[in-house]
Amino acid sequence: MNYSIGIDIGGMSIKFGLVNDLGEIVYRATVKTNKDIKIAIQDIVKVVLEILENNNLSIKDIQGIGIGCPGAVDSITGKIIALPNLGWEDYDFVNEMKKYIDTKIVVSNDVNVATLGEWKFGSAQGYKDVIMLAVGTGVGSGMIVDGKLYEGGFSRGGEIGHTTLYMDGLECTCGRKGCLECYASATALINQTKEEMLVNKQTNMWDYVKGDIDNVDGRTALECSKTGDIGANKVVDKFVAYLSEGVLNCLNVFRPEVFILGGGISAQGDYLMKKIISYCKKYDYGYKNAPITKIVAAKLGNDAGIIGASCLTKDI
Amino acid sequence: MNYSIGIDIGGMSIKFGLVNDLGEIVYRATVKTNKDIKIAIQDIVKVVLEILENNNLSIKDIQGIGIGCPGAVDSITGKIIALPNLGWEDYDFVNEMKKYIDTKIVVSNDVNVATLGEWKFGSAQGYKDVIMLAVGTGVGSGMIVDGKLYEGGFSRGGEIGHTTLYMDGLECTCGRKGCLECYASATALINQTKEEMLVNKQTNMWDYVKGDIDNVDGRTALECSKTGDIGANKVVDKFVAYLSEGVLNCLNVFRPEVFILGGGISAQGDYLMKKIISYCKKYDYGYKNAPITKIVAAKLGNDAGIIGASCLTKDI
Repeated sequence: MNYSIGIDIGGMSIKFGLVNDLGEIVYRATVKTNKDIKIAIQDIVKVVLEILENNNLSIKDIQGIGIGCPGAVDSITGKIIALPNLGWEDYDFVNEMKKYIDTKIVVSNDVNVATLGEWKFGSAQGYKDVIMLAVGTGVGSGMIVDGKLYEGGFSRGGEIGHTTLYMDGLECTCGRKGCLECYASATALINQTKEEMLVNKQTNMWDYVKGDIDNVDGRTALECSKTGDIGANKVVDKFVAYLSEGVLNCLNVFRPEVFILGGGISAQGDYLMKKIISYCKKYDYGYKNAPITKIVAAKLGNDAGIIGASCLTKDI
Repeated sequence: MNYSIGIDIGGMSIKFGLVNDLGEIVYRATVKTNKDIKIAIQDIVKVVLEILENNNLSIKDIQGIGIGCPGAVDSITGKIIALPNLGWEDYDFVNEMKKYIDTKIVVSNDVNVATLGEWKFGSAQGYKDVIMLAVGTGVGSGMIVDGKLYEGGFSRGGEIGHTTLYMDGLECTCGRKGCLECYASATALINQTKEEMLVNKQTNMWDYVKGDIDNVDGRTALECSKTGDIGANKVVDKFVAYLSEGVLNCLNVFRPEVFILGGGISAQGDYLMKKIISYCKKYDYGYKNAPITKIVAAKLGNDAGIIGASCLTKDI
């Protein structure tokens, strides 16, 4: 059995896993994310060496280290371009790590990495063309094209969340207006839920959040819609429409064999997937008359980052 | 020197070219498009044999025959799925042709083929990641991904013209609403021009079309805007905004090294390209702070179809 180390860098913590060829995490570790990149690298090196020691492995025994990063990285040069949440910018990350650890080290964007994980060991195993939208705070995306992770030119594409849903629409953090992310992220769902609640004092969503609108989260409308609440249904139907239009855009451009919905929202599983599939089925061109794309929820949950990162070092 | 035959099937005529390794068309032929697919195949076979004879070549002397088709084809199986303008549907095209001609025969979509031509011998030579939007009656697209023509899964993707610009917007022929094609095609530009003229009797566009609104074409607003006409400028500025938002979407998803604007509209060359580049430059995320994509007009004009089709048979 071969092993790789997968590392998932997040804003709060850095998660490590020793991953075998079956995509199983056989050993885990975590360290708090230090915002000082130089200290963070020292932390990472220390944990990697501990993982090896605790598993009676030497560096020669692993295939390498793969690292998923929350933001723009150049996987070819190994440089971090910009990780806004960490304030890490323009840093020769892989080469710096190689000063301390002599193995293959590969970085990529966190959603790319999660897509790789879902493709190799999750909900899209065995396919060649796969698109994933990760719906959380924002809308990220990953693309498997012709049996290979495709990061876009300069390893900087894949920003399907920043394509237009409503030209001249809501202001997006990216500077454009009306991006998919403004309508179909969990952040957007929370705003849409609050907007409905403010004009609808009868909705059960008020009870659900114990009368405090600050308690609204991405589950509020979805959970209340399951009980048939009219206001919640209105919010969910509109959100499903936004998200499904984004899905149809992906289908028309990539016509993947599998479309994966990932991110926090994918925990809603079948309930949400059925609504999205039902919406997409109404559209001939994007769905009915085209080769049918399987639309599924992500399966690996929070482990997608570690497992996917480990795949970066394998020739698969 | 190696030769291939490139065939460009259009609604009115089928154009043929004997193309050398330099992408030069050294011999041309044309035949009227017969709507009966069986007769059309006989016509194609006859012209191919004539081309060979007139150039003292045997079928063994050419690398193969590539064919661009206006609609959905499956390049893997060689089947025509649906060419709406010709009424050709679900036909085992390549295998039928092979009954008469024993060489490599490959079909693909016409915009894919034009993109291949521009990539190999036109405005995007030497790059690895290239996206083309062909703006004509509709908005077609072609994608070169990691140094290879990418047709999408099932060879049925690449419908960037059918991604959303305005959700719930204008009715699209595809059944969805608000597709890029509804706003950024030549057809859309003609409609936008007429709408402005109907509410603006002072615009010089009325003189340009000799007082007859039926004379409006895709050039009307563009040509009049060059003379500073206010109504024409308004139409062109809005059209440029629509088209540029589509370009920015392509950049964010694919981050290509080169973006090619093709189709009839690309004949406007620098005048239009400068406006598009200027619009895109306003947007940090899609353009300024990202690796810069070269935005260029197509170069091969009407020959892109023949030259690109010939490339389908070469291992390039």
